[in-house]
Order: sequence, then C-alpha cells, then structure tokens
Amino acid sequence: MILEICKKAKAASVQLAKLSTEEKNAAVCKMADALEANADQILAANKKDADAAKVKGLKAALLDRLALDNRKIANMAVCLREVAEMDDPVGEIVKTWTRPNGLLIGQMRVPLGVVGIIYESRPDVTSDATGICIKSGNAVILRGGSDAINSNVAIGDVLRDALVETAVPVDAVQVVTSTDRKVAEEFMRMRNYVDVLIPRGGADLIRTVVEKASIPAIETGTGNCHIYVEEDADLDSAVPIIINAKCQRPGTCNAVEKLLVHTTIAEQFLPVAIAALREKGVEVRGCQKTAKIVQDVKLATEEDWYREYLDYIIGVKVVKDLDEAIAHVNKYSTKHSESILTSDFDKAMRFIREVDSAAVYWNASTRFTDGNQFGLGAEIGISTQKLHARGPMSVRHLTTTKYFILGSGQIRK
Amino acid sequence: MILEICKKAKAASVQLAKLSTEEKNAAVCKMADALEANADQILAANKKDADAAKVKGLKAALLDRLALDNRKIANMAVCLREVAEMDDPVGEIVKTWTRPNGLLIGQMRVPLGVVGIIYESRPDVTSDATGICIKSGNAVILRGGSDAINSNVAIGDVLRDALVETAVPVDAVQVVTSTDRKVAEEFMRMRNYVDVLIPRGGADLIRTVVEKASIPAIETGTGNCHIYVEEDADLDSAVPIIINAKCQRPGTCNAVEKLLVHTTIAEQFLPVAIAALREKGVEVRGCQKTAKIVQDVKLATEEDWYREYLDYIIGVKVVKDLDEAIAHVNKYSTKHSESILTSDFDKAMRFIREVDSAAVYWNASTRFTDGNQFGLGAEIGISTQKLHARGPMSVRHLTTTKYFILGSGQIRK
Repeated sequence: MILEICKKAKAASVQLAKLSTEEKNAAVCKMADALEANADQILAANKKDADAAKVKGLKAALLDRLALDNRKIANMAVCLREVAEMDDPVGEIVKTWTRPNGLLIGQMRVPLGVVGIIYESRPDVTSDATGICIKSGNAVILRGGSDAINSNVAIGDVLRDALVETAVPVDAVQVVTSTDRKVAEEFMRMRNYVDVLIPRGGADLIRTVVEKASIPAIETGTGNCHIYVEEDADLDSAVPIIINAKCQRPGTCNAVEKLLVHTTIAEQFLPVAIAALREKGVEVRGCQKTAKIVQDVKLATEEDWYREYLDYIIGVKVVKDLDEAIAHVNKYSTKHSESILTSDFDKAMRFIREVDSAAVYWNASTRFTDGNQFGLGAEIGISTQKLHARGPMSVRHLTTTKYFILGSGQIRK
Repeated sequence: MILEICKKAKAASVQLAKLSTEEKNAAVCKMADALEANADQILAANKKDADAAKVKGLKAALLDRLALDNRKIANMAVCLREVAEMDDPVGEIVKTWTRPNGLLIGQMRVPLGVVGIIYESRPDVTSDATGICIKSGNAVILRGGSDAINSNVAIGDVLRDALVETAVPVDAVQVVTSTDRKVAEEFMRMRNYVDVLIPRGGADLIRTVVEKASIPAIETGTGNCHIYVEEDADLDSAVPIIINAKCQRPGTCNAVEKLLVHTTIAEQFLPVAIAALREKGVEVRGCQKTAKIVQDVKLATEEDWYREYLDYIIGVKVVKDLDEAIAHVNKYSTKHSESILTSDFDKAMRFIREVDSAAVYWNASTRFTDGNQFGLGAEIGISTQKLHARGPMSVRHLTTTKYFILGSGQIRK
C-alpha cells in the first residue's frame, strides 16, 4: 500500500514540476478556500481525535497542540495564502557561464520531486507542509501520528478535493492512513520514489528516522538552546532577554534551555536572574556554584545539560570564560540556536564563528529562529544538520539545481 | 579504534575551522612538496599492493587504477597546488539583511567539520580528497579499499608528516589502517563526530553506504548515461559525439552507456553509428528493432538497461518519440549525465527540463561532467543525489552556512 502511494506521488511530481507559478498558486489558494469552506468536517474529525486523546490521558500541552478550532483553521488558510504569495524558486537560472570550448553551462533550480513528512500531534502541519511542497513543485506524502489521524485524513481529503479542478494532480498530496509503525518504517526506505524525508517532532522521532531511513533525511527541530552572559554584558537587558527566550513559549524548539554565566558576574547577576525566572514559575537546575550562590537550586545532572525540557525548567551553569562557554555549548547543544550577551564585538564574533549551531545570536533572544521572524516566510521545519539546508527551511530549500550544458557538437579532447 | 580516529578528527576540525586562507594554502602546498620528495617511499608501498593484486588476479583496468608511478605522483602534487590556488569559500558572507525590529541577520559560509571518504582502489584519491577537505576547512578521515591499503597508508603518512610544521593539525588527515568490513560499518555510524560521508566507487559500495550509514551521505559516481538522437539531429556530428562519449575513457562515470534513437531515423542512422562503434571495438546490445536493422546485435535484457558497463559495451534502443526517450531515461538512468542531439531548441529545452539528472546536455558529449571541465576546479566526486550538492562537487560543496543575528536587546513579542 505504501508502495502504491509512493508510486503515485512520483508520477504526480513529474506533472507538478512542469506547472507554471500561476497554476501552483491557484491550487494553493483553492486549498485555502476549501479549508475554510469545510471547517465543520475537519472539526468533527478533530473532535474524535481530541476525545480519544483525553481518554488516553494525553498531557495538556499535547492536547492543546492537537485541538483545532475555527481560529486555527483560519490560520491554516492564511498560511496557505501567504505561501501562494511567496516567490517561486523553480525555474530560476542560478548562473550561466561559457567555457573556452564554447559550451554554455548553467544551473537551473528545480523541485526535489517527492517530499515525505513524518510528524507528530499537530494536525495543522498537514496543510502547512502541503502548501510549501506544492508551491516548490514537489509532491508530498504526509505520515502523521496516530493521535491526530482522523484530523490529518480529514484535512488531506479537503485539500485533495480542492485540487480536482486545478492543474495540480490530486496525488500530489497524500496522507498515509495507516498509523502502523511497520508501515512508517517501510515508508522511510522508499528511496526510489521519495527524494527527501523531513521528520518534525521530538528527539525520539528524529532518532528513529536517522536509524531506519534510507531516504536522505533532514533533521529538524530539537533545540537545547543556550544563552551565555559574558562579564561585560549589559545586565539590565540580559534579564528580559532570558525571560523572553525561556517563557514566551517554552514548548518551542527555539526556547532557551540553558543559561551560562561568566564567573566574575555570577554573584551579582544570578540572584537577580533566577529570582526573575522563578517569578515566572521557572524551575532552576544549577551547577554546584549556582547552588552556592542562590538558595534552593536543585543540582543539575550530566543528563540535564543534554536535555531539551520544552517546559518551565532551565539549567544554569557558571563558566570561567568564553572558551569554556563555547566548549560547553559545542558539547551539549543540539546545534539549533545560541546567544551571547556581551558589549564586546570581538567576543561576540568569536562566539558566532566558533559555536557550531544553525543560528548564533548577539544580544538577542533565541526565539527569533523562525522562517517568518527571519523574513523568509512560512517554514517546513528548522534544520539542525549541516547538509542541504541549515536553520529555517522554506520553499526555496525544497528545491535543488541541475546543470544544463548547451553545445554545438563539442567532444572531450 | 575508529572512535578514537573520529574524536581526533573532530578536535582537529575545530582548530582547522579557525585558520586563515593563507595558513591552509601553505599546508596544502607543503603536502604537495612532500609527495614529490617522498615519491620513492610511496612507490615502494604501491608496489606491494600491485604485486598482491596481480597474485589475486585483479582485472587489468583495476590494476591500472591501482598502480602509481612518478608521473601520477607528480599529478597528485599538481592537483594539490591547484586546490591551494582556488578561492576559499570559508568566511564568505552570503548575504545580510535587516528586520523591522532592528535585528541584522546574515548567513556566513563555514566548513562542514569532519568529512569521511570511503573509496576503492585508486590511491590518488587519498591526496586529492585531502587537499579539497583541508582547503575547505574540514578534517578528513580516509577509508580506502584493501587492494590499495599500503599505498593509502604511505600517502597518508607523507601528508601528515608534511603538516607537522604547518598551522593545520596533523589529525586533520587520518587514514583508517584497518580494512575490516566491520570497522567500515562502525565508521559509517559515527554520526556524532563525522558530518558527511562521501562514498566514491561502484554501485555496491554506494549501496552499502546507503544501507548501513547513519551519517548523512552524498551518493556519487555511478553513471548509466544516455544519449538520445532526435529525428532532426545533425547526424554528421552525432557519430563523433557518441564515439567520444563511449570510447574516450569508457571506465569513467560520465561515459555514455545507452544510445536511444528516434524511430524515423533508425534505419538510416543505426547502421552508420553501430559500424563506427564496432570499429572502435564496442560491443552493441540492442532492442528488437535495433537487431532487425543491424546484423549480429545481441539482444539487450531488461537488466542491461539499468547497467553501468564501464567498458566497451553500449545498449541501443529505438524509441518512438521524445516522450518515450525522456520516460526511458528517467526510469533507467542513475541520474548522472544525459544528452539530447537535436536541431530543435524547444525539444532540447523539454529534454533538459524533464530529464531528472544532475547534468543534461544539448548537442555535446556527456564526458564533460567533471569539475575541471566545468571550470569549477578539482572535484571530490560527482553527486547523483539531489540534496546539498548535485553534479561535480568541489571545495565550495564541502561547506555549509550558519545564520548570525546581531541585536541590541531584541525580544520576541
């Protein structure tokens, strides 16, 4: 069954790659209209998922991600319309040059082909990812989690129905209805049909994909993000940055999880910073030195330094200098987003160059690592690996290039 | 043991990433000098490999790839010096822009980190790959085949010795001395230390890497390349192009393996083309129609259409039109290089757009798919996959980007 889905996607991708920007945009807008027109049908399916999740005893945060309402559906439609308005990277001639033998060589931007999305409980991913894939000329296969299966299938049906009267083949969008783990693993090995796999979810999902997939995958999303406060940082602006990075939306991958503080200012700064964090309900887990300076700090374990809490928890460590801060980040981080707070340009530049993460900040909250916040438009995930795309991935990152070589009978000497 | 190698490489990569272009160039030139100065030592080791290979009964083509001489060593040195002269992509600011909230966002080009090369019998890959990796700021781990192990170790020793008095750490270059398959498979899973794996070799090697590796890999090299002759092609230039693509160096990945001919011109063109091929000693395996038109053509099997011969063999098929040609190529090719011979611009453009390969030619030999021939400089392989890099990969393709974000206390609203 999964083989059939993949074959259909491949066939659809061939048609899709030939379409004009206008044809793709028209289809994406039709899908947006259809979501709004069929909101009731989607909400009814979502209610089944939500009811089952409550019975199952899902955590409040997960229930919140799962539950749809009219506002969320309207947002999904807005997101699709925004994608329709984005520039179309397909067909762009990246560059051309001529060789001494007269060959004209160029690079042309083309779709990847078939994109596989493996995701967890957020059903809005179904339409967000579809919009970005179609806009970039790729067929998409969506394999969501079992908690949201009714919602995902309903959204998929609405999107596919919307395609019937457009130039985009209906099979350019397919939702895998089976939630069997075996089927997911079979899907991850459909290398002859699927060009890239994008897992969106927690560390366990990412690990499974890395272990089981033979399709090239782009790791996304896990963020054990750090803020390092240098001895010369402006401490007045440091506290609001840390509070924002931790508390504005603690469940997101760009929320800060660890605070590193230069030893010289630790006694002055930590009591203030930790009091502010605690006032917001944040639990502090600290190193020995932190626990000496501030009362009632639970000691962080080695495992804590690796963890992405996605919760009102933060790890705090006193470091002796910039070198130790950089070494700590490079050892424990997930290579997502890190920030240095300092008034020294050279220190900032060293941190930026030597910290091996997708996004490195100077004097700002880590919460900006996001396609829209960066001004790149809707994103399909935030890549934490180095190949192909790093950081927020948008329409452009779902394309590749091909060389074209125009000649007049040239042969190699 | 492989774990130790990987840890040392990671540590070396951190130092290497900080070096200036001049420091890296000086080290690469030192390595070139050292190869020439120690040619005898390398040739002695190579003789052991060559003798063992003869005893083992290796094919002539493989013996030829394995055997070094003073000319080949001089070429290895030349290749290193050319790499030293290439532009350094590291540190390049790809672009910068400012957001309404005042954040300055930019993208900076940085090395990947640690590159793993898994290759077969050509010992010159040891130094060629090392030069490109060091120039791009990456540490390299080289795991060559057992046939060339003495040569590879000797070359590695010479290159490492040359680094002693340079700014590049010696452990930036390491040759895996074990040829145990288990060790190779362990190596392919060192995801925490190695950033990318580049297999260079035959289809079996590539398949093993795809199956066993958890490190992101870039598929290279296998080329089941096609030339399609349209009914309106200039047949006088078609024959030399086909002969060049097949016979100039049949053992290379960009040599043509299949010839597709439009049915309208088959009776006129095939006897001429096949006679010319046979005169060069090429065995022709054809479809039913080809066998009807030309005498003594062995019938090609289904498996033939998938095969990369790397030999004086070619598969020939008559197709009814451009659509069938494109469909055939997209079904059987390894997505390397394909060429259409036609006098019609629109047909050429359709073939270029719709054939899903790294390099698509109009009226030229497929033999030009090569870093130097494209004017990109020395290459580390030719990617036949779509992620990260497609086509000839050079220094630039061994880098990634990171975002830097400069602020003045910005927090997310």
